[in-house]
Amino acid sequence: MDEPSTAYVAVIGAGADVAPALLAEAETVGALLARQGAVVVTGGLGGVMEAACRGARMVGGTTLGLLPGEERAVANRWVSVAVATGMGELRNGLVVRASDAVIAVAGGYGTLSEIALALKLGRGVVGLGTWEIDGVQRATDPAAAVKLALDFT
Amino acid sequence: MDEPSTAYVAVIGAGADVAPALLAEAETVGALLARQGAVVVTGGLGGVMEAACRGARMVGGTTLGLLPGEERAVANRWVSVAVATGMGELRNGLVVRASDAVIAVAGGYGTLSEIALALKLGRGVVGLGTWEIDGVQRATDPAAAVKLALDFT
Amino acid sequence: MDEPSTAYVAVIGAGADVAPALLAEAETVGALLARQGAVVVTGGLGGVMEAACRGARMVGGTTLGLLPGEERAVANRWVSVAVATGMGELRNGLVVRASDAVIAVAGGYGTLSEIALALKLGRGVVGLGTWEIDGVQRATDPAAAVKLALDFT
Amino acid sequence: MDEPSTAYVAVIGAGADVAPALLAEAETVGALLARQGAVVVTGGLGGVMEAACRGARMVGGTTLGLLPGEERAVANRWVSVAVATGMGELRNGLVVRASDAVIAVAGGYGTLSEIALALKLGRGVVGLGTWEIDGVQRATDPAAAVKLALDFT
Repeated sequence: MDEPSTAYVAVIGAGADVAPALLAEAETVGALLARQGAVVVTGGLGGVMEAACRGARMVGGTTLGLLPGEERAVANRWVSVAVATGMGELRNGLVVRASDAVIAVAGGYGTLSEIALALKLGRGVVGLGTWEIDGVQRATDPAAAVKLALDFT
Repeated sequence: MDEPSTAYVAVIGAGADVAPALLAEAETVGALLARQGAVVVTGGLGGVMEAACRGARMVGGTTLGLLPGEERAVANRWVSVAVATGMGELRNGLVVRASDAVIAVAGGYGTLSEIALALKLGRGVVGLGTWEIDGVQRATDPAAAVKLALDFT
Repeated sequence: MDEPSTAYVAVIGAGADVAPALLAEAETVGALLARQGAVVVTGGLGGVMEAACRGARMVGGTTLGLLPGEERAVANRWVSVAVATGMGELRNGLVVRASDAVIAVAGGYGTLSEIALALKLGRGVVGLGTWEIDGVQRATDPAAAVKLALDFT
Repeated sequence: MDEPSTAYVAVIGAGADVAPALLAEAETVGALLARQGAVVVTGGLGGVMEAACRGARMVGGTTLGLLPGEERAVANRWVSVAVATGMGELRNGLVVRASDAVIAVAGGYGTLSEIALALKLGRGVVGLGTWEIDGVQRATDPAAAVKLALDFT
């Protein structure tokens, strides 16, 4: 992990009430990223975040969870390294900053705030069934999303 | 200003390359907010931020500028109280948190990140020619925008 | 307030259980700073923070309160402009960054963290009965403290 | 690493101009923490931070580096997972928050700010030749420091 070339890619999306098909996509995204050696960055909670972490860890990858609260214990169990930021939703900005590219899987306003900030900061943003914002590269499946994201890093 | 009922309303939008008509709208928004006793919150820089501050200060209002960098000196000259946050674009989250409602005047990705975060945090969001996002109340002129925003506070 | 030369000086110290004599000193510090045209920056809560704000406002000054929580309503009533940062104790760093110099009135660990960070960032630090740390200029009364602090700005 | 009981312990100290004997102590601290299964948290840069990371990694441990800037590439090569916070010295607060206990190895004002904040937040703080502040448990060697720190977690 200490090699300068390790890519960090965020997987962002809703933390609850996510359709099973989307969770499966997020898990596949996490697994594919990990197989390419990327660190998977998330907000550390449930839903899409948890699915992506699970996918990454199941294939031996590393996951970073940047939590909104002050309690590390709420991280999902697939987070390798958790950071309790205590910054609330401002941690969304840390998720984006910590990453070279972002893959958005569906998602609500929180996800949109991360997409927008990522575009503002010049990070590559790939979308899987997410907000249709100019600048987001749309992918039709996890493999395409991961390829597009890694092309940015 | 020390009354609990003072409203804080953010005026957000681009910091440069803003059309004169939009600047005029932002200035009017700032003036109308100040006349209603609201503190005008911005990111403290140029463009829409400066126009809103100028409008507010010209009628005796108070403006709060939350700057991205560590230098207070870059605040536009119409900022009453400037905070050099040194947090870069993460200060967008502070602009939203510090406010009861947000008025977006056009704007790019940075503005979109603030709109999305404001919606996530349950702040009222009013748009003047800005991103068309579900949840944003659209106004056709500054007076309508200010009325809608203050209804939220 | 829009003049580039306006000084911002933080007054830091405990938020509760402060001896009346210290509160009186903090209030005098706030008043003297305001009379010199400085914006008084505090953490926005009670104790020393409130006393300094009261002193400043009583003579027509401006006070900035950077609150740890997300609720602006908890600001003491002498805060002119309040920012609900939602960053918890990390807001201590914002208090220091926002200021050109710091006057510490007694205080506990939170105050010590601000003193240390201020010294790290090269801000002038003046102490009134506070932690004895190398680099802190000790003053024997409010007038001397304010003079020393303003010399830094 | 996904077990709720994993301890996170920060090793803090100067980033440059550190005496070889102190670097050796920091490296031993890192190694002993890693052998006990703790994640070693640092500010991700050189000096004491790098030595602690190197010690931990050499025995197969995991290290988290919370960097002040926006560039992950400046992390020392022994950081397992790096977070470019872009928050400058405010990231000191994140180092403390992310950890259950803190071991300070000598250090200057930045270290003092972390010690103070850790005490404020109720983290255990152990010192090896560092600032003499009430509340810091003093250790005479790395083994004792690690034992004291882990007793807090």
